[in-house]
This record gives sequence, C-alpha cells and structure tokens, in this order.
Amino acid sequence: MAQALRLAERGLYTTQPNPRVGCVVTHGEQVVGQGWHERAGGPHAEVHALREAGARARDATAYVTLEPCAHHGRTPPCADALVAAGVARVVIAVNDPFPQVAGRGIGQLRAAGIAVECGLMQEAARELNIGFFSRIERQRPWVRVKLAMSLDGRTALANGESKWITGAAARMDVQHWRARSSAILTGIGTVLADDPWLTVRLDDTPFTPPMRVILDRHLRTPAGSHVLDGQVPTLLLHGAAAPMADGRFERVEPIAIAEHDGRLDMQAVLALLAERGCSELHVEAGPTLCGALFAAGLADELLLYVAPVMLGDSARPLMHLPPLAEMAARWRLRTIDQRQVGEDWRLRLRPQR
Amino acid sequence: MAQALRLAERGLYTTQPNPRVGCVVTHGEQVVGQGWHERAGGPHAEVHALREAGARARDATAYVTLEPCAHHGRTPPCADALVAAGVARVVIAVNDPFPQVAGRGIGQLRAAGIAVECGLMQEAARELNIGFFSRIERQRPWVRVKLAMSLDGRTALANGESKWITGAAARMDVQHWRARSSAILTGIGTVLADDPWLTVRLDDTPFTPPMRVILDRHLRTPAGSHVLDGQVPTLLLHGAAAPMADGRFERVEPIAIAEHDGRLDMQAVLALLAERGCSELHVEAGPTLCGALFAAGLADELLLYVAPVMLGDSARPLMHLPPLAEMAARWRLRTIDQRQVGEDWRLRLRPQR
Repeated sequence: MAQALRLAERGLYTTQPNPRVGCVVTHGEQVVGQGWHERAGGPHAEVHALREAGARARDATAYVTLEPCAHHGRTPPCADALVAAGVARVVIAVNDPFPQVAGRGIGQLRAAGIAVECGLMQEAARELNIGFFSRIERQRPWVRVKLAMSLDGRTALANGESKWITGAAARMDVQHWRARSSAILTGIGTVLADDPWLTVRLDDTPFTPPMRVILDRHLRTPAGSHVLDGQVPTLLLHGAAAPMADGRFERVEPIAIAEHDGRLDMQAVLALLAERGCSELHVEAGPTLCGALFAAGLADELLLYVAPVMLGDSARPLMHLPPLAEMAARWRLRTIDQRQVGEDWRLRLRPQR
Repeated sequence: MAQALRLAERGLYTTQPNPRVGCVVTHGEQVVGQGWHERAGGPHAEVHALREAGARARDATAYVTLEPCAHHGRTPPCADALVAAGVARVVIAVNDPFPQVAGRGIGQLRAAGIAVECGLMQEAARELNIGFFSRIERQRPWVRVKLAMSLDGRTALANGESKWITGAAARMDVQHWRARSSAILTGIGTVLADDPWLTVRLDDTPFTPPMRVILDRHLRTPAGSHVLDGQVPTLLLHGAAAPMADGRFERVEPIAIAEHDGRLDMQAVLALLAERGCSELHVEAGPTLCGALFAAGLADELLLYVAPVMLGDSARPLMHLPPLAEMAARWRLRTIDQRQVGEDWRLRLRPQR
C-alpha cells in the first residue's frame, strides 16, 4: 500500500478534479502490475496496473489507495475490471467519499467473490486527497493559507515592501504547493499592491494549471492587471452592487457573490469553488483576508515560511485578527510538519478546533 | 576528545566563573582516567583524571578540552601535574584565551618533552565555554536573549497578559538556560509588570545560582519586589541622577552606570558584568530592552520559543526596533539549532554581522 500511495503521488499535480489514486497488483511475493491515475479522462490506476499484470492478475491481490469506482464515468467502472481480471483479493486504503458511491465498489467486488479489506494506511490515503475529501464531504475546498514572514511575524515593511523576505528555495517550494492546488485565491488588496500573476512557475514538472480566484467586491481590478490576462481560467468574485464590466473582464469570469458584514461571504465563495471542482484552495493574500479566513475557522492549514530575519515592530503584521481579552482565548494550532527550506523554515499547521 | 567534552558538560551549571573543562587519559586503546572540573576552587579536570589513572598515566595520552593552566590559582598548575604524572602526549581542543596565559601551558608541557597537539574539536570546545571566551576576549559576557512568542510574533496580549504563551516543557527548558548562565538580566518594565523572581527552579540538578541584574535607571523597583529579596546576589543598575536608596535596597547592590541617549549605557553594563565574572548573560526582558540590545548588536544569541498559537496583531510585538526603509536593511540571523520542546518550537539564532 505504501508503494501504491507513492504511485498515487505521481498524479499530485495533474489529476484535477479527480483524486490521486495508485494501485499495485501482487502475486505471492511478486509485484506484477503497478499504475496510477494521471489525469482526468485518462485510465484509472487499477486499469493501468491490471494491464501491466495481464494474465498474472488472476488470483492476485490488488492494493488500491481509494475504493474502486463502480459507476460509468468517462471510463468504465474499475470494480468491473478487477472482477474481469480475476483478482482474488482487494485491499483498499480508504472508502470513496461520495455518499451515493461509498461501499458500492466494495459491494460489487464482494458480490463477485473477491475478498475485500479496507482501512490499510487510511490516514495517509485521506491526507493525499485531503482537498478531494473536503470538497465531497464538506462541500468546500481544503483551504491552505500560505504566508511568508520574518522571525518577528512580519510580512512586509511599513512601506509595503515585501520582496523578498524568504529565500529562493522557499519561493520555489511555494510553486509546488500552487501546482497541486485546484485554485489560487487572493484579494483585491494584493492585486492592487503587487499585480501578481498567480500562475505556477515550474519548468520540468507537468501540472494542471490552477484556476485563479480574485475577491474583488467593488470590481476595482485595473485593466491590464496580470490576473486579467486570460492565461488560465480566472474567477472574479464581486458583490452584487459592483459596477458592471467595462471591457476589462473579457478574459475572466465575473461572478456575483452574496455579501456578509460588508465583505464577500466566504462560505458562499468556498461553496462556489467546491461546485467548480476545487479541491485544494491555495490562498496568497494580505493580512486582512488571511485573518478573516483564519478567524472564521475557514483556514484549514497554514503553510508558513519563516525567514531568519527581523523586520521590527513597525513592519506589517502576519494577520489582522480581533483582539483577545484573555490568553485562554488564543488560537491554537497543531504542527503537522516542519522543515528547513534553504535558509528558511517551513511550518505546516492546522487550527485545533 | 568527544568524551572529554561530554565530561566537561557535567560542569555546565556549576563551574562559574571558571570554564567547563573535561579530561580523558588513555593508554593505548584503554581509557585509564577521566575527570571534569566541577566547581571553582575544586580540582581541575586534569587532576581528577590523573588521580584516577594513577601509575597508568605514565606514557599515556591526555585529552583536555582547554589548554592546561600554567599558573598557581586556587589550585596548583595542571601543566605541572601532567609533567609529574609522566604523560607522553597531550591533545588540547582549544588554547586558553587569557592573552597572558595562552600558550604558556603548552610551552611548559613541550619544555618537559611532552608531545602537544592543539585544535581537535576546537569549535565545540569554544562553544561549550562561549561565555568564558567572550568575557576574556571581548570583555563582555555572551548575551543570550530569551523570548517566548506566538506564531505571529507576539509576546503578550494588548492588556499585558503573557502567562503563558508557551507550554510547561518550554518553561522548564528555560530553567536550564538560566542555570548555566552567570547572571539573569531584566529591565524595570518587567519588574513592575511581572514582579519576577529571576531565580532558577530546578529540583534535581545542582547549580551555581546566577546573579540577578536589574536595569532600573530611576530606581523605581518597589519595596517588596521579589528581586530585592537577597536570595541571590543582585545588582541594581541605575543612572547617576536616580534618587538614593531609602531602605528598599539593603539586600542588593545598587551601582551607578553611565547613561547614553537617555538610557543606561549597555556597553558599560556589559563591561561591568564581565568584570564581575559574568560569562553567559541570560536576558529575559520586554520588547524595549530586548530590541535595544538587538539593534545595538549586543544580543549575541536569541533563544526563541515559538508556541503554535496566534495572538493577533493587537497583541504586543517581539521587539521594538527602529523602522526599516528597505528590505535590504533587514536584520539577518543564522539558525544554530532548532527543536521541538513539548508543543513548542525552540530556535537558537545568532545575528549575522
């Protein structure tokens, strides 16, 4: 199963909107077939692995990181393929999250006399598709907020200068997190201040380009902004009262979003993105938007790069958050992972609910 | 030599004001004697090791982490002891830093026909006595600034509440850093806000209690403050114009210090502490004093505990530092060590000059 998960990871940047899935077929001690899902519309992991196994799939064991599909999508059901190949046993890491599908693949396999086991390395299998599970189970993407700060928690100088706090290695690392995301989200403040591209810059790695999502309540994104260039699908989310388009927005898709307390309703934004197939949402925004997501409990993960530098207390804060009256009310997080990236530190943290 | 350094470390909390020194005597492949310096006035490491070796010291090799002393202090010179014991070879990690002594121990050994080598594990040996070397070579202590902060770089809520940002394990870890220090320094702001004890709370570990040093320009430390209790030697450093004592200070030593730009002159403070035998100075203070030390280039090391919590941008900053006009001017540090302590992270950093 560990090998099947490693195979699944090869689809990290390309399976959107599908989950990443890997499959290993073994006969006795011998691996006779391996496969992974590479991109939507292409064959599923099981099909690749069974094809490689050929006649050796008979009486074999198939390890698959996600419950085999039982329905006709763009490809025929994998459960059928496993039955047709004559495998004796299927070991599954985690059930399909679709309520209407979960268990049906397993049911079909069992009905055909195949021994089925579930739950081996389940946690790692969920983690690999954390956005996919979030989208199906919670109807919202997994929200990963990327921040880069100094040791003293500052993201820019008082004059707004923020290039660069972290080093080249950290900035390249960010590209991989962008690439695995379904969409990259920012706010109008960042568009106006930095005119970002919000695209993925990776030379040697194929990836499905993530959507761009701009929160721009009053449609203030200036003509000629990089995010309007149509290079990748781009949603421009605005309030109902925003002045309508004047030709600036021909290459992007403006969508009106409900408002709440004078802001775009983030719950509505996330629901919309889930409907659009967004599994992992990568946020690169300023202290206001990041703070709003975090304080509302909508930031599922912080991807925090810490540079070994000090910027001082006149520099800009990491997030705007409502003042706390007592220490007991502090926001607690759990460290998922930490490592050194070049001279910088990368922490991944998740709020404790 | 690695073993000699481990032995030397056993004196980490007790040799003040002396350096930590370890010694291993070997004969062929066999260790015949081991020793370390335990406390000032007691035998030096070499004496312990030679005593254990006895007659087996003849023609042996002695590994010693610091150049053996050649002068009569409170104990007879170790160089003489090594000669008398008949060792054939002495391997030294690092030379004695005293200009008037450096090389004299080596000279006496060589004059007696002993082969002497220098520099083995020199860096680790200097590191172990970093405060001692600083005091002798720079005439100031090694200044280690301890800070505890949230992920977003905050040390207290807006209302001043700071207990506790970090967990019990981190706070216990701090006790060890206090214990190895010659002195613990704070400012009047912290005394007024927190009424700290600034003592070491370690149950099972013997230690030499560090001095307390209070920077109190106007002598505002209130009667009854814990730092005035005389439990450990305490220096109360004040400005020349401070109102003289009124009985509050009977158990402490008030000392007038030169002023500079409306503050106590930190260079003068550090010079005084070095004269008083202070090797490692442990600073636990507020953002003003910590920032002043850091900005002046007088903070040699940051001992930074980071709790996986957010306090928000209304909370108090890590350090007050002068505003930066451009990113190129940011203060850079080097990470010496990082580890998890309980739920928190501990970073040790040193400014890059």
